[in-house]
Amino acid sequence: MCRGPAVIDLPRHNANFCAEHLQQLCRRQVTKAIDDFEMLVPGDRALVAVSGGKDSLAVWDMLLELGYDADGLYVGLGIGDYSDDSGRYAEAFADERGRRLLTVDLRGEHGYDVPTASVATRRVPCSACGLSKRHLFDRAAVDGGYTVLVTGHNLDDEAAVLLGNTLRWDVDSLARQLPSLPARMGMPRKVKPLIRLTERETAAWCIVRGIDYQVEECPMAAGNRHLGYKETLNGLEAASPGAKAAFYLGFLDRMAPVLAERAADQVIGLSSCVRCGAATTSDADEPVCAFCRLVEVASAHEPVPVGMVVGRRARQARR
Amino acid sequence: MCRGPAVIDLPRHNANFCAEHLQQLCRRQVTKAIDDFEMLVPGDRALVAVSGGKDSLAVWDMLLELGYDADGLYVGLGIGDYSDDSGRYAEAFADERGRRLLTVDLRGEHGYDVPTASVATRRVPCSACGLSKRHLFDRAAVDGGYTVLVTGHNLDDEAAVLLGNTLRWDVDSLARQLPSLPARMGMPRKVKPLIRLTERETAAWCIVRGIDYQVEECPMAAGNRHLGYKETLNGLEAASPGAKAAFYLGFLDRMAPVLAERAADQVIGLSSCVRCGAATTSDADEPVCAFCRLVEVASAHEPVPVGMVVGRRARQARR
Repeated sequence: MCRGPAVIDLPRHNANFCAEHLQQLCRRQVTKAIDDFEMLVPGDRALVAVSGGKDSLAVWDMLLELGYDADGLYVGLGIGDYSDDSGRYAEAFADERGRRLLTVDLRGEHGYDVPTASVATRRVPCSACGLSKRHLFDRAAVDGGYTVLVTGHNLDDEAAVLLGNTLRWDVDSLARQLPSLPARMGMPRKVKPLIRLTERETAAWCIVRGIDYQVEECPMAAGNRHLGYKETLNGLEAASPGAKAAFYLGFLDRMAPVLAERAADQVIGLSSCVRCGAATTSDADEPVCAFCRLVEVASAHEPVPVGMVVGRRARQARR
Repeated sequence: MCRGPAVIDLPRHNANFCAEHLQQLCRRQVTKAIDDFEMLVPGDRALVAVSGGKDSLAVWDMLLELGYDADGLYVGLGIGDYSDDSGRYAEAFADERGRRLLTVDLRGEHGYDVPTASVATRRVPCSACGLSKRHLFDRAAVDGGYTVLVTGHNLDDEAAVLLGNTLRWDVDSLARQLPSLPARMGMPRKVKPLIRLTERETAAWCIVRGIDYQVEECPMAAGNRHLGYKETLNGLEAASPGAKAAFYLGFLDRMAPVLAERAADQVIGLSSCVRCGAATTSDADEPVCAFCRLVEVASAHEPVPVGMVVGRRARQARR
């Protein structure tokens, strides 16, 4: 791109990038995503869901740099040292930028952690983790008066979710897989400004910006289907640079509109959880949301150490 | 399945199959495909597009065994020894069953072959090959008074084409990717009875039925995208048996109906080629179909030996 020393080669863009040009590329792609999908407007109060990893710290950093009002939210999932370290990266970033970091501790406030929830529900840890985070993100955003919830999902994440939804032709999930979802009953607007950047690019952003982040993958996630889909897409990308972006962005461009017509006919009725007030699709007389049901089961279970769940998953993977 | 000696293990069905049970499985899946998509009706005169490979010979054999009136059509593509051998397998099968095998020789009747067409058009050989075959299959079926054209596309083929169309979100191609297409202007009804069988299953069918077939892959196809997609799907299938069938059959079940509504609004106008009368999407005053344009360019080019195209593709693949 220029005579500056290259920090990253990007076959998709058929060029090497120096630190300055990489930042330009990232800013341009994030601005384009925000504009194309009307993610943020002046006056928004944004809450960024922060894991302590590269993506969530990068998106928080970029939004602040672009002049948005953005605080962070960290949920302590109780995944041993991994969670402790992740929380410290989130705090360090917030302190440096002088921004507020809200925190929720699953064990301290709701009486369970992800490994325990996994064993108590007999489901993969990622299932309980995702459910918990979605609920707590929504609640914190609404309680804190934020107008929009921001997550750091990047192109690799979204393409992998899309591949999973497509391989199953889960048409309802496909119709909902949009980078900007409007607010509805008890849920804030939700946006994903990093959809046009890969995880190599967000990692490079953090490196050139001097942001320390959790570089480990979550030990609970090893061997999960989502990571398998990422590998599959990386294979396709290696054979044909640009294939991953074409897959995800092509979906938004050409398939999502077809599904939107269909989705408009099928608005799902929501009711309020009798325990916490959150929106739920339950149609029981006294509806209880999935999060409150998870809390009930998981908090009644004796604490399970992280290593037990990791070991079990490693044994399953070997079979 | 029984005490008979196993000839094939099928993880998707979680069982090993003896020769007799394998044939039962194949007959059941083909009958289901024919019924589900109204592929064939009593009184149909079927023309099977026969390459000399396992799939086309298997589908011809199954249709005859199920009592359908089915002749074959072999197109000599001029791909050196590969084509000569393939033609002999097709003839031997026809002779054994006492059925008629129509033949078309590209070089003899149209003045070109696939390697030459590839060089003359500067496109991959599979492009000229597919275009030639589609045109000649349609013409032979209509000229011969056949009511339906049968091809041996199996689950692996269709899933790979689907993956390619999906990765590009080629919505028009997705809408047309159906196992049974009605007749329209100058084109016969087209059906794919093997969509519920994998290539391992059709190969096993040929083996237990004593059918000799061309076991080599086409030398022109090596390294093409379609084979890459097959490999990708085989990786997904290995990680999760049944994933390939769920992908393709789930598409037919849940996505194709959504696209059909859309396709109904977009009927493409066809006109007749001024040279051969075939249907064409060309909207010129004197429309010439893609086949006649190919014949014009390829027959004017001096013959190109197979090895030259294979060698060029091998060099490209190494890059």
